[in-house]
Amino acid sequence: MIDNSYTIESIGVIRSELASLENAPRQGDEGAPDAWLELTAAVAQGLVGIKVGDELIVLTWLHRAQRDVLQVHPRGNLAAPLTGVFATRSPDRPNPIGLHQVTVLELAGQRLRVAQMEAIDGTPIVDIKPVLAPPDQR
Amino acid sequence: MIDNSYTIESIGVIRSELASLENAPRQGDEGAPDAWLELTAAVAQGLVGIKVGDELIVLTWLHRAQRDVLQVHPRGNLAAPLTGVFATRSPDRPNPIGLHQVTVLELAGQRLRVAQMEAIDGTPIVDIKPVLAPPDQR
Repeated sequence: MIDNSYTIESIGVIRSELASLENAPRQGDEGAPDAWLELTAAVAQGLVGIKVGDELIVLTWLHRAQRDVLQVHPRGNLAAPLTGVFATRSPDRPNPIGLHQVTVLELAGQRLRVAQMEAIDGTPIVDIKPVLAPPDQR
Repeated sequence: MIDNSYTIESIGVIRSELASLENAPRQGDEGAPDAWLELTAAVAQGLVGIKVGDELIVLTWLHRAQRDVLQVHPRGNLAAPLTGVFATRSPDRPNPIGLHQVTVLELAGQRLRVAQMEAIDGTPIVDIKPVLAPPDQR
């Protein structure tokens, strides 16, 4: 139904030494390398206020994921029972949006270098948000 | 460019007593009510494994947001300097995906009741993920 679909436009791309899914860790804190977020010129104004040391949540489009999968063996462990994708962090899911919590290491115009990014080179970026501070510090 | 856009299909909808943006808190932990997540039958298998008490991240499509806004006064405070939307949690941004951390209160078939959801009634749901456990508990 036309009412139930929405178009995402990528705002940039991940530049990483991780070239293939086979070599990518499952999560950033499982040994992922630093990476660059390369934003498009069209959205560069949206970065104003981001500082080195900030904790960000990067949303990506996991372009290599399978969208018709609803159940998986968590973490690829065939001994684990089939589980609904919404109860897992599997990249395979109807709308394969990745969430990645990272720390900003360097700012260079419309590029940000971040620590511990498990997404592979070429992964589209769709949004960036700060990690929420406690309610009394917002 | 055709290569840089992706289609999201909603997987369900928020059912909440919050009918208008004017009455909605900015974040779930700022006084938001409980709400129902109503998933479509097509994705119901993806819920298997979710339990009462689980902490989930719900991703929504903030259908009332403005997508051509790149800078805002944070939290609507006109005394605060204009800031890039990627340094804020403003719903207005190029791809208005909402992130909401909630606790599961009740499961009823393809419906989940959750605590502290600030999205208004009718907001499309696009994904659900568990909050990540520490690395040694995954």
